Amino acid sequence: MASRKTVGVLLFEGFELLDVFGPLQAWGMLAEITRAYTIVAAAETPGPIRSAQGPRAVADYALADCPPIDVILVPGGIGTRREVNNAALLEWLRRRAAQAEVVTSVCTGAALLACAGLLDGRRATSNKLAFKWVTSQGPAVQWVGQARWVEDGKFTTSSGVSAGIDMALAMIARLVDVNTAEQIAIRMEYEWHRDPSWDPFAKIHGLV
Amino acid sequence: MASRKTVGVLLFEGFELLDVFGPLQAWGMLAEITRAYTIVAAAETPGPIRSAQGPRAVADYALADCPPIDVILVPGGIGTRREVNNAALLEWLRRRAAQAEVVTSVCTGAALLACAGLLDGRRATSNKLAFKWVTSQGPAVQWVGQARWVEDGKFTTSSGVSAGIDMALAMIARLVDVNTAEQIAIRMEYEWHRDPSWDPFAKIHGLV
Repeated sequence: MASRKTVGVLLFEGFELLDVFGPLQAWGMLAEITRAYTIVAAAETPGPIRSAQGPRAVADYALADCPPIDVILVPGGIGTRREVNNAALLEWLRRRAAQAEVVTSVCTGAALLACAGLLDGRRATSNKLAFKWVTSQGPAVQWVGQARWVEDGKFTTSSGVSAGIDMALAMIARLVDVNTAEQIAIRMEYEWHRDPSWDPFAKIHGLV
Repeated sequence: MASRKTVGVLLFEGFELLDVFGPLQAWGMLAEITRAYTIVAAAETPGPIRSAQGPRAVADYALADCPPIDVILVPGGIGTRREVNNAALLEWLRRRAAQAEVVTSVCTGAALLACAGLLDGRRATSNKLAFKWVTSQGPAVQWVGQARWVEDGKFTTSSGVSAGIDMALAMIARLVDVNTAEQIAIRMEYEWHRDPSWDPFAKIHGLV
């Protein structure tokens, strides 16, 4: 069996629900199948964290106490507008990204990676509705307007909200194998968009 | 403005993450747009509740203390195998269903509605992987093998995991209007399956 890996999600007040729990559904099913993955949630203060939509999730660890993370998940949500100015959180992202195998974001989570300087010179994407704001946070990033997700080295950034599910399945295909990712999509009864260039929402928002 | 409505989700140990947070993402965006919806989470004991995948959500209320619910959401997950024998929970479902405008389930959540007797004589569907177990919990239910979701009066039951998102959007189209549901799907960057008979997973699991 491969060595045990940890998927770690960053939580903050005003995170977007599906940005977190779409990918965690996929990673959680992988954990059920392989028994080689663990999921942890970290935030500045452990305990209940309110989402942008109201319902609360629980952070298991304070940022400093979180065990090593192999796969980082950075969600978006209205709270990113505040966290781009949170120096301690951005420093945590830099330190943890250096140690991680894969760093992923959903939606406006890319703005946090950009503000941490992690995407400079790299190709990346984000939510299409908030694209103007996100791209303003990373002038040295090569932003891609039409993409479901973009992989550049260890960084994979995905589009808005539901795009995180497709991206997580693509990461599982990369880290494990495509058959396992397909099996998980079927268990989720989810029609997986496997083509990272599939993005009808870019046109709706006038980005192409 | 229409009178304020409450969407209430039932939580229990071992709930399936996306069954809960897929629909709540859609209902939460509706709440942001209309300001006329509130989301609450109820469980036998309020506080943190562990999902089937590990991450925890917070129940705002004990079952008895939960305010009146207009739209009930019953998720599935491995915990349903235990909760079908929980007489207090089934009685709560019967009482709350009588008062609700709409009662919805995702995945094996239909087994809980069936065991409460709420689906007797009605058409309903569920997760395709666990279809045999779920249908054994409701011999007087008219189970539909191929369906993304099934509406019968105030009860709407959906297929596995991700199907809850399509079902929630269909409920928003019914309770509000189709334009609002479309607007939410676009904000989620989600390809909404609007046809309730779309179900490639029924064939994969040999149900048609």
